[in-house]
Amino acid sequence: MSEVWQDPTAEVAERVSDLVSRMTLEEKVAQLSGVWGVDPTVGDMAPMLRDAMGPVLPWEEVIADGLGQLTRPFGTEPVEPAEGVRALAERQRQVVAANRFGIPAQVHEECLTGLAAWRATVYPSPLCWASSFDPALVERMGARIGATMRSLGVHQGLAPVLDVVRDLRWGRVEETMGEDPFWVGTTGAAYVRGLESAGVVSTLKHFAGYSASRAARNHAPVGMGPRELADVILPPFEMALRAGARSVMNSYTDTDGVPAASDRALLTTLLRDTLGFDGTVVADYFSIAFLRTLHHVAETDQDAAGLALEAGIDVELPSPNAYADPLLAAVVAGKVDEKLVDRALFRVLRQKCELGLLDPGWRPVESSESLDLDDPESRQVALELARRSVVLLSNDGTLPLRPDARLAVVGPRADTFEAMLGCYSFPMHVLVHYDGIERGVDIATVREALAASHDVTHALGCPVLGGDDSQIEEAVAVAAEADVCVVVLGDQAGLFGNGTSGEGCDVADLRLPGRQEELLEALLATGTPVVAVLLVGRPYDLSRQADRLAGLVCGFFPGEEGARAVADVLTGRVDPSGRLPVSFPGAGSTQPSTYLAPTLGQRSEVSVVDPTPLFPFGHGLSYASPTWGPVTSTGGTTWDVEGTTEVSVELRNDTDRPVSDVVQVYLHAVAASVVRPVQQLVAAARVDLPPGAARRVTIGLHADLTSFTGRDLVRIVEPGAVELWVGASSADIRGTVALDLTGSARQVGAERVLEPTVAIETP
Amino acid sequence: MSEVWQDPTAEVAERVSDLVSRMTLEEKVAQLSGVWGVDPTVGDMAPMLRDAMGPVLPWEEVIADGLGQLTRPFGTEPVEPAEGVRALAERQRQVVAANRFGIPAQVHEECLTGLAAWRATVYPSPLCWASSFDPALVERMGARIGATMRSLGVHQGLAPVLDVVRDLRWGRVEETMGEDPFWVGTTGAAYVRGLESAGVVSTLKHFAGYSASRAARNHAPVGMGPRELADVILPPFEMALRAGARSVMNSYTDTDGVPAASDRALLTTLLRDTLGFDGTVVADYFSIAFLRTLHHVAETDQDAAGLALEAGIDVELPSPNAYADPLLAAVVAGKVDEKLVDRALFRVLRQKCELGLLDPGWRPVESSESLDLDDPESRQVALELARRSVVLLSNDGTLPLRPDARLAVVGPRADTFEAMLGCYSFPMHVLVHYDGIERGVDIATVREALAASHDVTHALGCPVLGGDDSQIEEAVAVAAEADVCVVVLGDQAGLFGNGTSGEGCDVADLRLPGRQEELLEALLATGTPVVAVLLVGRPYDLSRQADRLAGLVCGFFPGEEGARAVADVLTGRVDPSGRLPVSFPGAGSTQPSTYLAPTLGQRSEVSVVDPTPLFPFGHGLSYASPTWGPVTSTGGTTWDVEGTTEVSVELRNDTDRPVSDVVQVYLHAVAASVVRPVQQLVAAARVDLPPGAARRVTIGLHADLTSFTGRDLVRIVEPGAVELWVGASSADIRGTVALDLTGSARQVGAERVLEPTVAIETP
Repeated sequence: MSEVWQDPTAEVAERVSDLVSRMTLEEKVAQLSGVWGVDPTVGDMAPMLRDAMGPVLPWEEVIADGLGQLTRPFGTEPVEPAEGVRALAERQRQVVAANRFGIPAQVHEECLTGLAAWRATVYPSPLCWASSFDPALVERMGARIGATMRSLGVHQGLAPVLDVVRDLRWGRVEETMGEDPFWVGTTGAAYVRGLESAGVVSTLKHFAGYSASRAARNHAPVGMGPRELADVILPPFEMALRAGARSVMNSYTDTDGVPAASDRALLTTLLRDTLGFDGTVVADYFSIAFLRTLHHVAETDQDAAGLALEAGIDVELPSPNAYADPLLAAVVAGKVDEKLVDRALFRVLRQKCELGLLDPGWRPVESSESLDLDDPESRQVALELARRSVVLLSNDGTLPLRPDARLAVVGPRADTFEAMLGCYSFPMHVLVHYDGIERGVDIATVREALAASHDVTHALGCPVLGGDDSQIEEAVAVAAEADVCVVVLGDQAGLFGNGTSGEGCDVADLRLPGRQEELLEALLATGTPVVAVLLVGRPYDLSRQADRLAGLVCGFFPGEEGARAVADVLTGRVDPSGRLPVSFPGAGSTQPSTYLAPTLGQRSEVSVVDPTPLFPFGHGLSYASPTWGPVTSTGGTTWDVEGTTEVSVELRNDTDRPVSDVVQVYLHAVAASVVRPVQQLVAAARVDLPPGAARRVTIGLHADLTSFTGRDLVRIVEPGAVELWVGASSADIRGTVALDLTGSARQVGAERVLEPTVAIETP
Repeated sequence: MSEVWQDPTAEVAERVSDLVSRMTLEEKVAQLSGVWGVDPTVGDMAPMLRDAMGPVLPWEEVIADGLGQLTRPFGTEPVEPAEGVRALAERQRQVVAANRFGIPAQVHEECLTGLAAWRATVYPSPLCWASSFDPALVERMGARIGATMRSLGVHQGLAPVLDVVRDLRWGRVEETMGEDPFWVGTTGAAYVRGLESAGVVSTLKHFAGYSASRAARNHAPVGMGPRELADVILPPFEMALRAGARSVMNSYTDTDGVPAASDRALLTTLLRDTLGFDGTVVADYFSIAFLRTLHHVAETDQDAAGLALEAGIDVELPSPNAYADPLLAAVVAGKVDEKLVDRALFRVLRQKCELGLLDPGWRPVESSESLDLDDPESRQVALELARRSVVLLSNDGTLPLRPDARLAVVGPRADTFEAMLGCYSFPMHVLVHYDGIERGVDIATVREALAASHDVTHALGCPVLGGDDSQIEEAVAVAAEADVCVVVLGDQAGLFGNGTSGEGCDVADLRLPGRQEELLEALLATGTPVVAVLLVGRPYDLSRQADRLAGLVCGFFPGEEGARAVADVLTGRVDPSGRLPVSFPGAGSTQPSTYLAPTLGQRSEVSVVDPTPLFPFGHGLSYASPTWGPVTSTGGTTWDVEGTTEVSVELRNDTDRPVSDVVQVYLHAVAASVVRPVQQLVAAARVDLPPGAARRVTIGLHADLTSFTGRDLVRIVEPGAVELWVGASSADIRGTVALDLTGSARQVGAERVLEPTVAIETP
């Protein structure tokens, strides 16, 4: 036990230390786990998860010595918000009354695409946040989500997911912000700032490496070296911690044989000692038990508890299992040092103190009868973000749709609200298990949204999975009669096999699910121009059809206003302005593969397998594009290893409509002491241009942004030749600035500059 | 420069040191690279390889200061052996005459499936060696290969390939010995013992990590942690070094950002300081240049030369590039310490000394007119090994074929000798580029071999790739008229796209190439029983057809006697006895995936993607099976962490034909301090049983065989519960022995026991 508790304000520390000193061991341990207030066993849960839940005890028994956390009172079954608040307040009063110190429980919920509760706004999915390239808007969304949670008495949200995509086959790609660490970190930090601005604890997950599981199978082992971990996986966490996140959740996976839940080097040495984090580390659901049952690094639950506590997990979620009798017994037997319990307890109580839960006058949030969790302002944010996120991948001029075009709107995702929703939205995560319950929020379908402006006919074509020939024939007949066929294809989000995207819904290849490619081919054969709209949780292989499509639009899961946003883009009411945060795979390409690859990770003469994407990272079209001036460097040709350089470009809108573009800056190292990606994003700036307007975008880059993990596993800024590639996508480079990084190799630490400066001015 | 030269015998050291001290820098550097004696640019060579070759200089200029190595005088173009020997002797005389010290060149050749030279025996491929589970036979083959090489004046062979398969999509799977480190090491060590017994230097490659390149793309980066490297990739090298290998070749790849060619920790600290290796490290072709051109860790060839030399590469192959003028200039400029040149030179000259090349009376091998590189004894070894290696994967009783069965022998691999050959065989590696040259060795086809005993009709069905409907229809017609259809499917070996398996011929998925699956379905639809014979470089996905096949036989690339071996097995003249050294993928499974996986790397409830193989590691059927008695443990229930335990099982042949089985012992750790594979092979013993015979197989296992890389990256034997699973395949466990490893955790080093003891006795 060499580490000491971090230094909060002296007053809080004193108050909390006093509490710690007065608690019995039972009272201490009771603060270190959550418990479900409602029956959690209705929803999707693999048997191995149920096994890991531990015994379900009577409520009075559970709270007798106090209670650390209440698990998802709104997010486990459909609860009327006002009733939920009343029930939660009652539970909190019981918790307060039951323990000697009158400490209430900290309440956590899922909140990835908005609070995962009945009747709450469903915002676009994280891939949409990233494709919007508009962190300020993401921050506004985060603040709305936080305000809603706060109004219900919820203290902590289990978001965002900061996993950097490494393999598109992974089911949880839909929960991520894509394949670039800098952009995941930038977007994720914006979400964190928003959520935390409402006083809600943001939980960064999954720390760390989850997305790199072998063959993209959920929970499978991660084979990754320390350099890749440091340079690809960790930066988003560093950026989000600086944005004020107060909790971190471990990854389920093991990296090179060490499970994150038992990895002291990760959860303590790196997270606390190096990065200075002083919040709480919470266990991903059941993951302490998994140390025994699945990773087999513990023979008993006592061992599992000791490993996790020593590594640095402070709170067991969702329910007491290892951090219950096993932990108690291990401490009593002298197998686990009680100081480790105190360390975790101190962090838990300090956070409760910060949240006001230890204030003498604390009262639970009481209900108001008119609780609206999907108010007009929230819907407006959901709409704006959805509009910004839709990506136009290709267009032969058919888009925007002519106002008089007769449309066939077909396909499995054309007339279902579920097409808009990711697997962590309440309707898909929970409500699917309750028959006859209304969905709680208004969500239009693409067919409905297009019917508002166009003459529309419809046929299913095929379901997401399965279907029969007659359905395809019917869609073909409808398409043949139309001027344009809009086919809406994609995923059904769900968990553990109840969908084609989402947790546990990994895939073996990247073909569109079911018969959707067959449907697409049949529609193309009609001769009617076909515009394909993808509402997907991951990119799919469209390489066989892309050049025959009249247009291709990707919406990922755009949320409750998604249909309107898609229709706005298709009709031209809104100019498409999203950019891809993940690459679309090319013909014959394989996984794992992302744009973040060194020379030999790209197409080469020594392998016949070509990973070149069909649509690259950062790609996205508009109906009208600004003119780019020359890319200039204002800092000369050298760049001090401790200094800043600047690149600048002027964009001019010569069209008669508002346009938007994203200036992307990629770093290219000519040579380095270790193998580096050919290019990596170091800055991006969205520029909105009214008709006739011009804007000068100036981006300042500190040399720290060029840093990487060197030969001796220390992060360095290395002198030498680099280039800044400035463009409209990773493959559409409009100008290059060659620079010599000068000076001596310089070690940089956790204090390093993580973000560029961006100035957008009217010239 | 902390290290000193290893201690050879004092006499050799003195002699070599004296030479080193008398050489000019130019003479020293001249000893550190090879050169092609013939024009190498005819064969398959990607443009980036040609770029890396460096300038082709006049021969006199090349040898003016001496010459380290001669590159493939027999393996670059078809040369009549006797003429080749004469030409080589002449070149050697020129080399000797040109340098002040009269030192000849060391001559190296490829020899993976036998010496890669015209008219030389083509043995079965390494996957066949492994599937034979007969290391003694592999050693005999190695000795034959070595004797042939020695008879031509060749000193060094660039084999074996010890890469452990991590992803079946990799093109070079055919060059490996499968997916289990212990079995790769056991089989590889046998090859090494054989080759070295003839006085030929065996070269272990590729050190290390090549097989784990991302998405199995050739040369792509390897993302792997140090524990996986130590526990999976390195053990075969340790075993083969103990078998006496005197050279090591680096991997082309980088691991976690560090190219093997510039990795001092790998090539010097581990290989020499820890493992005690004192032979030579040779560069894989062009890989020093690649440090600049592809890995971008060097800005100049001087830098590349310095990095590689400092890391520990002694010899540049195939031709002087970085270890030529750039290295000279770097030393002169003081950028590279001349002591590093001396270190490499010492190793090179010491090996030449050991080979007799420094003996005063040295003379090149002179030709004999009757050189037979494919003598009857070699053919016999090739036949025996091929027979042992054929794996019967499934059989509904149709096999062995009835003597009177009318056979349709169809399919793209049914009537071509090329089906027997891997990409490093001379015919496929070199001869394919020479029109009108006879193949040099007699190689029958499966059709020819079956026609010797059966009434056979034939149709192509389809080529390996491509083909038209009429060809399939023709095969269907032939099959419909037959009693049994034998369809021979598989790969065409070749390099860089000139085939479906082999170097650079990675694949995007594991479906049979071209229209072969379609052909198979068409044949199955005839109603005629279909026996499929696979002649392949990797396992393919047969999951959709396996349960409808009358029989399935896998031959990998069985060499020049392969057709006879396959026919012997099909007809029952030989009992099938091969066992799979690689898993066949199951329906919907994904890559990377091998049997060496922990719990979460196998089927689980949290991913819908199921990696369970169709045919597991170690699987293989016979026409008659011995009866297994109970598996017994003679060492009680405990096993000292420093001690040995024994398991024993009696096999009895109650049939009237000779049978053979492979007793396989797998280690299962109940719990460990790091995540361990569910099972890993620790012993295997082939048992041949005449009719009526019984054999007791007793296997002794030292506790070192349970060692693994612990939490602090040190190899340990860890006390705790383990099980030994004894069976006929990894999924056919016949008996389990539960043991407690007792004592304290014990660190083990390079001296640890690597192999079990096996006793086979008549009870």
